Amino acid sequence: MPEAVVTMDGWYCLHDFRSIDWTTWKYASSEEREQAIHEFRELVGKWEDTEQSKQGSHALYTIVGQKADFMMMILRPTMEELNEIETAFNKTKLAEFTTPAYSYVSVVELSNYMGNANEEDPEIQARLKPILPKWNHICFYPMDKRRQGNDNWYVLEKDDRAKLMYAHGMTGRQYAGKIRQIITGSIGFDDWEWGVTLFAHDVLQFKKLVYEMRFDEVTSRYGDFGSFYVGNLLKPEAIPQFLHI
Amino acid sequence: MPEAVVTMDGWYCLHDFRSIDWTTWKYASSEEREQAIHEFRELVGKWEDTEQSKQGSHALYTIVGQKADFMMMILRPTMEELNEIETAFNKTKLAEFTTPAYSYVSVVELSNYMGNANEEDPEIQARLKPILPKWNHICFYPMDKRRQGNDNWYVLEKDDRAKLMYAHGMTGRQYAGKIRQIITGSIGFDDWEWGVTLFAHDVLQFKKLVYEMRFDEVTSRYGDFGSFYVGNLLKPEAIPQFLHI
Amino acid sequence: MPEAVVTMDGWYCLHDFRSIDWTTWKYASSEEREQAIHEFRELVGKWEDTEQSKQGSHALYTIVGQKADFMMMILRPTMEELNEIETAFNKTKLAEFTTPAYSYVSVVELSNYMGNANEEDPEIQARLKPILPKWNHICFYPMDKRRQGNDNWYVLEKDDRAKLMYAHGMTGRQYAGKIRQIITGSIGFDDWEWGVTLFAHDVLQFKKLVYEMRFDEVTSRYGDFGSFYVGNLLKPEAIPQFLHI
Amino acid sequence: MPEAVVTMDGWYCLHDFRSIDWTTWKYASSEEREQAIHEFRELVGKWEDTEQSKQGSHALYTIVGQKADFMMMILRPTMEELNEIETAFNKTKLAEFTTPAYSYVSVVELSNYMGNANEEDPEIQARLKPILPKWNHICFYPMDKRRQGNDNWYVLEKDDRAKLMYAHGMTGRQYAGKIRQIITGSIGFDDWEWGVTLFAHDVLQFKKLVYEMRFDEVTSRYGDFGSFYVGNLLKPEAIPQFLHI
Amino acid sequence: MPEAVVTMDGWYCLHDFRSIDWTTWKYASSEEREQAIHEFRELVGKWEDTEQSKQGSHALYTIVGQKADFMMMILRPTMEELNEIETAFNKTKLAEFTTPAYSYVSVVELSNYMGNANEEDPEIQARLKPILPKWNHICFYPMDKRRQGNDNWYVLEKDDRAKLMYAHGMTGRQYAGKIRQIITGSIGFDDWEWGVTLFAHDVLQFKKLVYEMRFDEVTSRYGDFGSFYVGNLLKPEAIPQFLHI
Repeated sequence: MPEAVVTMDGWYCLHDFRSIDWTTWKYASSEEREQAIHEFRELVGKWEDTEQSKQGSHALYTIVGQKADFMMMILRPTMEELNEIETAFNKTKLAEFTTPAYSYVSVVELSNYMGNANEEDPEIQARLKPILPKWNHICFYPMDKRRQGNDNWYVLEKDDRAKLMYAHGMTGRQYAGKIRQIITGSIGFDDWEWGVTLFAHDVLQFKKLVYEMRFDEVTSRYGDFGSFYVGNLLKPEAIPQFLHI
Repeated sequence: MPEAVVTMDGWYCLHDFRSIDWTTWKYASSEEREQAIHEFRELVGKWEDTEQSKQGSHALYTIVGQKADFMMMILRPTMEELNEIETAFNKTKLAEFTTPAYSYVSVVELSNYMGNANEEDPEIQARLKPILPKWNHICFYPMDKRRQGNDNWYVLEKDDRAKLMYAHGMTGRQYAGKIRQIITGSIGFDDWEWGVTLFAHDVLQFKKLVYEMRFDEVTSRYGDFGSFYVGNLLKPEAIPQFLHI
Repeated sequence: MPEAVVTMDGWYCLHDFRSIDWTTWKYASSEEREQAIHEFRELVGKWEDTEQSKQGSHALYTIVGQKADFMMMILRPTMEELNEIETAFNKTKLAEFTTPAYSYVSVVELSNYMGNANEEDPEIQARLKPILPKWNHICFYPMDKRRQGNDNWYVLEKDDRAKLMYAHGMTGRQYAGKIRQIITGSIGFDDWEWGVTLFAHDVLQFKKLVYEMRFDEVTSRYGDFGSFYVGNLLKPEAIPQFLHI
Repeated sequence: MPEAVVTMDGWYCLHDFRSIDWTTWKYASSEEREQAIHEFRELVGKWEDTEQSKQGSHALYTIVGQKADFMMMILRPTMEELNEIETAFNKTKLAEFTTPAYSYVSVVELSNYMGNANEEDPEIQARLKPILPKWNHICFYPMDKRRQGNDNWYVLEKDDRAKLMYAHGMTGRQYAGKIRQIITGSIGFDDWEWGVTLFAHDVLQFKKLVYEMRFDEVTSRYGDFGSFYVGNLLKPEAIPQFLHI
Repeated sequence: MPEAVVTMDGWYCLHDFRSIDWTTWKYASSEEREQAIHEFRELVGKWEDTEQSKQGSHALYTIVGQKADFMMMILRPTMEELNEIETAFNKTKLAEFTTPAYSYVSVVELSNYMGNANEEDPEIQARLKPILPKWNHICFYPMDKRRQGNDNWYVLEKDDRAKLMYAHGMTGRQYAGKIRQIITGSIGFDDWEWGVTLFAHDVLQFKKLVYEMRFDEVTSRYGDFGSFYVGNLLKPEAIPQFLHI
């Protein structure tokens, strides 16, 4: 029987996509809107403090298209903290003007096909508890390894899987410096097996990377994808402008 | 023709996931909110009495992500009782501030591939009428055995199925003490064939178990999965805090 | 080319599932609620008169889980009558507090693989125009015969189909007295090819039957299923209690 | 490479299914309801004038089950006219009490596998610009020709496709006088490749025809179907009764 | 391993489909409606200025059927501009009376299978930054290249893919002058791999082209399609008439 690979797991991760009800937002009084923005910025401020003290990290992006208006990506050491942050947001004034659009629950994951990674290694620790880059663009999509007829990832021997993953990693390496990638595992937590979050300065790099990788055998025969979300960095100080009526 | 396996069936089971309409909840008066919380805790109190007298069991968890805000898992000797509890909840004050998110109807099931289990055995009885553990985390997902081209569980001979299930059980056994698993059957009751409910102290164990099991042939070739829900224990005394505005 | 089988068709059938908007129901005045219940019971009373005179039949069940709160199954000699009953319900007071959850349009059908059934036979007539039993539980699900790769029911020769159906019937026969089954055909009427409605005193029999049948080749290779609905008998005199606030 | 068949195309076609919001309809004043009915009948009156002058045709049916309450099928020489009629309906009083349920955009199509049809032939012209029969029942469903593994219609040679279509036509011919069939093509216009609209005096003929055709190889191996809608003729003079509160 | 093809990418593209809430629109005061129309025309006016200065392009069409009432297609040099335009629209008065229906995020793309195209070539530049034609009709659909069993585009060698694409291009070339086609790539940006936008004077040409192309091997074996949207040109000066109550 094919052998499972031991993974290393770090911070828990919530991707939280929200749509704004622009009509009710517009009809709120300007005091209400100011209060909502103020309170939300305070919440983000707390997240920044957490990030500062390396107890977690977060990202805030507007989303292009109708799938959502903005997204919050939150990393924390425990699942309970994710739940608390989510509930705290739901209780804010701003939340009254948003509707849930999509969410994803996972945990930062490093696979260890070679079996030579040492979880205690500070570099590994930094990758398991990453401070998210504030780059211009984000791309998120969930994915599965396919189990369909002759294209069944989970019946391949570990060595074969390792080779395919290695080649895939080589494709990714060409984008070093252009794209930063966070893989989060969600088997047992959400509907797909992994979430992929990419950061880039140049949004076109997402397309180049994902397109090129589609020809890797690990993808062409074994990759199944969910919805893709693409967004632009929303700096805290740009929130008032984004929400300005 | 492949032979069906005689199953042993215990308590009926309702998984009831709910989302909170936080905006209307916030705009309710604090009296209304207090009343709603009080009444809900009384309802849960009755469930605790039932559990005390071993006439059923239940679990209450908050759910991480937007799929739902909390879930109630209810075990009872009859389908009618499940229906009554559901309707009773729908008539509560709290229900006015919730919307249905997902539900699942099933019955606790033990398979008996070896044919050597005795349903009257007290240990078997205890597994058919389980008191749900109040562990930190819950994971729920429904599943099917695949019937697709050459990967068709229902055309396998009973002996072959038994071997695959045995190996699967061996994988599970490694998680003894870390994960408690309740299998409920839903053929004829709901849209998938089984529901799997896992309890753990450490939420990461869900991912480890479900990932490792994915390589078992019974899963890699014959397992199809629905949505995964993951949550944190909501103790009755923590309800006011969870709902506090 | 495989030959189609002549079917015998009886009463038209509407399965009508409804959810209750419990919040608006609770906020209605008790007079309104009483009026709504009274009017609905009068409507059911008319259906009982129709059943009495053997001009149709009906069933009323509460549904377990969030898929719906109750369902009405209506049999009538014409499609127009089904439409009228549906519209009449939509115009009732009670309907103001319900939302459509799911419906299914079909006609009672007997297949005649052997070709030896005589449609004029009183026993056949009774099965084509059945008075629905008032048993404790109902189970409904729609289904297709699969047309997928090598598992294509509609390319099998009639004799092969007849043998598979015969074996399937043998499985069903073991449940005589425990389960009453109504097959309704919906090709050309609704999204699946058949609807299966089961009645039982003991709800567990649904699971046993459907599970056992899953190993029949006609199911394992050729059966595709829609959603399953399970419910408890709602006697007319129990309506006020069910809806009591 | 398999050769495409030249089709002949006639009037553009909109199937427009609507659900009625019975609660708001009931709470409208009787004046409002009368006005809404009057205005809708005037609109239908205009359609009748268009049909009279052979500049188009239409059909009006109530739909059985919850998928919709009624449907309008509109044939016109241009896509712009369909859009105008749709918008005109949306601006009516009655539309305030309806919600969109489903729609389908297509064009009346005749295939010409033999290549011997002359588009100028008056009989062909009459089939391309058909006056819809006012028969008791309607059945609508969209469909695709399958492209899946070995069952791929679009890789078959034209002659093979022609033979399969011919046999299919022979099945249909047995229903001459019982069923009138309008095929509309929607490749490039809507989500399926064709729409099939059937008219019958006896609703059971829909089931017989569609069931029998399912065994034609063109269907068993190459037919994929969307949702089926079945309805009863709604004569303009019956509109007030249908909508009467 | 099959080699990826270098693509050339131009302006970013947002397809934004909206439905009108005709009832609230009708109940708005005529001043509000005039204001909403005026403001929207001003917004479109700004887009026209941008187009005039070749800094982007746009198209405005009404959509036939219930999928949407109108669509805006926007081309801009950056993803940020698309996001700003979308948000600007959401803040307009007119947006208060619309609901999101569908959107698609992509970038104008030219493939370069032959490898002989020069991105600096003015003709190529014009195709990468196209001024959208104001032709009578639009057709939009997203698509994937299939990865399914033996029909897997991404395992084909580049030469084989090039041949299939060349033949496909030949089919398209027959529609020169009748149809103008814009291919936009969306791998990494949205749920399908490409968006296809067609413009025509004669709407029937969409059907002819898409139908004929379905027999190209690149489509019959390797093409998967999403929803199709078809629409009619909405000239800015026709907006008041379209929205007139």
